[in-house]
Amino acid sequence: MNKIITISRQYGSGGREIGEKLAKALQIPFYDKELIAREAKESGFAKEVLENAEDRVTSSFLYSVAMGMNVYGNQEFGTPILSLDDQIYLVQTEVIQKIASEGPCVIIGRCADAILKEYTNVINFYIWASLESRIKRAINEYHLPEKKAKEAVMKIDKRRANYYHYHTNERWGKAENYHLCLQSDFLGIERTVKCMQLFMEQ
Amino acid sequence: MNKIITISRQYGSGGREIGEKLAKALQIPFYDKELIAREAKESGFAKEVLENAEDRVTSSFLYSVAMGMNVYGNQEFGTPILSLDDQIYLVQTEVIQKIASEGPCVIIGRCADAILKEYTNVINFYIWASLESRIKRAINEYHLPEKKAKEAVMKIDKRRANYYHYHTNERWGKAENYHLCLQSDFLGIERTVKCMQLFMEQ
Repeated sequence: MNKIITISRQYGSGGREIGEKLAKALQIPFYDKELIAREAKESGFAKEVLENAEDRVTSSFLYSVAMGMNVYGNQEFGTPILSLDDQIYLVQTEVIQKIASEGPCVIIGRCADAILKEYTNVINFYIWASLESRIKRAINEYHLPEKKAKEAVMKIDKRRANYYHYHTNERWGKAENYHLCLQSDFLGIERTVKCMQLFMEQ
Repeated sequence: MNKIITISRQYGSGGREIGEKLAKALQIPFYDKELIAREAKESGFAKEVLENAEDRVTSSFLYSVAMGMNVYGNQEFGTPILSLDDQIYLVQTEVIQKIASEGPCVIIGRCADAILKEYTNVINFYIWASLESRIKRAINEYHLPEKKAKEAVMKIDKRRANYYHYHTNERWGKAENYHLCLQSDFLGIERTVKCMQLFMEQ
């Protein structure tokens, strides 16, 4: 199997755990936010971006325009300025492309599905769950205070949807952006992993 | 297996064929637009709606308001008027509920997923495919003229999305409205059917 697997997931859906279990079952590397950040540091991408900010900004600016992103800056005087968020996204983009070029792996979040759009060996999954079960998971697994759990779950997902839309100009959780979308609390974690494996074996 | 299966599908995704094959494999009845219409005629629902239009309209009006639908009519004088489209939808709603109460089956389209929202034994699938493959299918299987195929595919899907949104106030093709969303041209028809069966067996 020479597949790059991306997993987009609602907060509290267990998507991260599912991704870890899938990576373990397939015996391939697993990357989440922390591991991508570490990779960025180690590979020197972050350093490069910050040191050569001007060059980066120019090409990133064209890239941003091409992607239909919002770009802040003074275009009239040729000095577009990327927000810190945009710069981080750019670093992540390069890291994710580097990771994908190294072989099969599982990547969680970070718009990896959109970043690797042109790759033919990518399978994109979207994991969601009922609000009720996400709140439950947020309390039991992530130890959120019971009173604030609902609000937190909804807020984090809103942020994820905004992040995705801002950087990709696409709608998060739209079925057509993924090869397979699954409701994790319908099947449960273990069986969701198994179903994803079966899908890939088909 | 005591499941009611609903399949929402993009035009040209092969969703109807997939539904037929799934129903055959599971040895349960299959209902598409034509069969639902026949059922409506035979069960006398259509007749009833038209004959008792006034009563129907009143309860349908409340139902419509509750569902957040558009309702045309003169509310001030207590004479709300349902469009023909709304009346047909209402008949279909009753027929689909009747069908679902009779036992396991596969229902294609008609907002069946939303109509049967409160049923606990329903599994909702969404089948989509790349635009390219849908155009190809429209030409080869539905014999649409090559020049008009792309426009037709997009127009029919737009109509389906509008129909769904109008009647359910929900977004068609939003992952969270379905237990499983599949890209049929990624797996092919036969393997998509198999994957759906595997999902249900999990």
